[in-house]
Amino acid sequence: MSNRGWKTLAAIGIEEKVKEIAIPLDKRAMHVIGKPLYFQKYGKAGEAIWSIPRGVLNRTMIDLAEDAGVQFKFEEKVWDVDLPEAKLFTGNTEKGKWKEYKYDIIFGCDGAFSRVRHKMQRRSRFDYSQDFIDVGYKELTITPNEDGSHKLDKNSFHIWPRGKFMFIAMPNLDGSFTCTLFMPFEGEVSFEKITTTEEAKAFFSTYFPNVMHDIDNLTEDFFTNPTSAMVTMKCYPWTYWDKVALVGDSAHAVVPFYGQGMNAGFEDIYELDLLMEKYDDDWATIFQCYQEQRKPNADAIAELSYRNFVEMSSKTADPKFLLQKKIEKSFAQRHPDKWIPAYSRVTFSDRSYAEALAEGDAQEEIMQQVMKMPNIEEKWDSVEVEERILSLL
Amino acid sequence: MSNRGWKTLAAIGIEEKVKEIAIPLDKRAMHVIGKPLYFQKYGKAGEAIWSIPRGVLNRTMIDLAEDAGVQFKFEEKVWDVDLPEAKLFTGNTEKGKWKEYKYDIIFGCDGAFSRVRHKMQRRSRFDYSQDFIDVGYKELTITPNEDGSHKLDKNSFHIWPRGKFMFIAMPNLDGSFTCTLFMPFEGEVSFEKITTTEEAKAFFSTYFPNVMHDIDNLTEDFFTNPTSAMVTMKCYPWTYWDKVALVGDSAHAVVPFYGQGMNAGFEDIYELDLLMEKYDDDWATIFQCYQEQRKPNADAIAELSYRNFVEMSSKTADPKFLLQKKIEKSFAQRHPDKWIPAYSRVTFSDRSYAEALAEGDAQEEIMQQVMKMPNIEEKWDSVEVEERILSLL
Repeated sequence: MSNRGWKTLAAIGIEEKVKEIAIPLDKRAMHVIGKPLYFQKYGKAGEAIWSIPRGVLNRTMIDLAEDAGVQFKFEEKVWDVDLPEAKLFTGNTEKGKWKEYKYDIIFGCDGAFSRVRHKMQRRSRFDYSQDFIDVGYKELTITPNEDGSHKLDKNSFHIWPRGKFMFIAMPNLDGSFTCTLFMPFEGEVSFEKITTTEEAKAFFSTYFPNVMHDIDNLTEDFFTNPTSAMVTMKCYPWTYWDKVALVGDSAHAVVPFYGQGMNAGFEDIYELDLLMEKYDDDWATIFQCYQEQRKPNADAIAELSYRNFVEMSSKTADPKFLLQKKIEKSFAQRHPDKWIPAYSRVTFSDRSYAEALAEGDAQEEIMQQVMKMPNIEEKWDSVEVEERILSLL
Repeated sequence: MSNRGWKTLAAIGIEEKVKEIAIPLDKRAMHVIGKPLYFQKYGKAGEAIWSIPRGVLNRTMIDLAEDAGVQFKFEEKVWDVDLPEAKLFTGNTEKGKWKEYKYDIIFGCDGAFSRVRHKMQRRSRFDYSQDFIDVGYKELTITPNEDGSHKLDKNSFHIWPRGKFMFIAMPNLDGSFTCTLFMPFEGEVSFEKITTTEEAKAFFSTYFPNVMHDIDNLTEDFFTNPTSAMVTMKCYPWTYWDKVALVGDSAHAVVPFYGQGMNAGFEDIYELDLLMEKYDDDWATIFQCYQEQRKPNADAIAELSYRNFVEMSSKTADPKFLLQKKIEKSFAQRHPDKWIPAYSRVTFSDRSYAEALAEGDAQEEIMQQVMKMPNIEEKWDSVEVEERILSLL
């Protein structure tokens, strides 16, 4: 959870309650082979992203909503939606008997594989795309020490970057870490190549020796837990007249490499809330403004998230790219008012994702010029380079 | 129908039978406001595209297939597909009783809104997109003269270009023409603006005065016939193991502005046929090669078709664009071996769509250079320009 999420929770008065289950992470902890562990601050003093286990967050928010009067129904599968009538049909099986619910408005917050969107998709002139990346993920767990403390620094987002694959760990309040292995489905080092306990052990001891001993039941979990796919999902329109609106992942699922999927969904709610204030009961207008405002920003965070995936999987080994990042960082430190790094604009500001993307493109264009300067490898930290950037800004 | 279609029909021995119901069109007939009717040859002598009403083609090919032993089942709707077992489930309604069919292999040739693809789409790692354009179409008919002859030249593809919208007519054997009005759904001149008989009459008398009198029941048909949408549909993979394959529009629906949708589908069959010869009963290999070979070509014809739409709807009024086309045409006439126009590469050759697209991009790059020459407006037909193109080739 970062700024956009907290901003939304603050607006509905539950920020403090949710902070109780969250751990602030103010830095990355980098576990690079052949180097001692080192840390990278995320932002300025006081800036942090927050780690919350998804299940705990869900339960907390459901409890808070129930206290406020929301009715929940569990164990009822929605099979069909009548869009113009705002009706839901539930039942035990798709072909069995269905129960009908009639509502004033339906909000489809039912995730990347949304049933509500699925129904909208079968109408004419509904644009839709789903694009999977060739990398999958698997969750694993680092258990707490016997005294309940964390085995690794608990205020860090731990990363073990290995080029085409990587391992990450995020702390939970109970002393454990939720870890994720990101790796191609197919290819030289890939999920399809690890089919036996021996292969799993060999893989971890080769690439993640220091983490291997901290993961209990490593090989068992490896084969019990699913290997999941990641998708970018876009669609339009997001609403059906004044009856139905898609919110969050159902309207715009992104790959997780910017940590913004949930924040983007929460920001949908924030903007819907403002529009409800402004237009009262005029839901046709509220929904029209909502989708027109949010769509470009959803597309922007999809693009930013995908670019971060490409950057992490193919560019981190490129010395030219690493040099460029070093120059940007050095310039940003000297001129924090003139150069806000992309990560900060997305994570610690509430300026729109579309602006963050556009500014990133403008910065990239400047850096392309800078990287063409002769002998840039030697003079990257010079006044000449600094002045060149200033002149291009 | 053009080359790729005929090539396929020739390979399975039904080319001549189908030619009996087709009319060759060797030129465009241009109906431009303020100009007398003029003609544009499509290609070299003997090169033509062919007009066949879709319904007549379907019936003819079904009859030919039935004679060859194919069993047809009509009035049975497929509701579900079991991909690994190659089973189809049919029935009167989605929630009613279903009948089960077990096959060795299922070919999903069930069009842009394919039920087979719909089932594949719900699996993980299936890439899919549907993109609608903001232009719709409506079919109308020009009836024959009383003696059964055609009211317009029958060996021409008739076009009434009007910038953002256009009207086209293609001849049928019975003396009638099947016409299509392409027009934006919304906007200044659009389908949504024509809601009464008076508005329809005013629209046609303003923009298509010479065609209006030839269309019987114009205003009645205008409101009886549906306004249809156009979509580019892409997906991958196209096959499920050795059990299921998508063919034609179900795998790659394109907008109709290159006249290649059906031809691309027939070419799928042609290539499948070659692979069946090559790999015998190894369907896993046949399907794998099929999708790997065809996917880039399907993407290329989608792009070419979409570009033709953009060209027709927004560039035909741009004098710079028209000048460029004039230069290309003049050069192609002088050097037919060095510059094959894109339309000819796509329509009258059987080189792959992907090659046709790549060569088009290369030509465009050359023309960008040429268009930057000083005073190109005056000297566009000069030896200097000709030599510049030759030097860039």
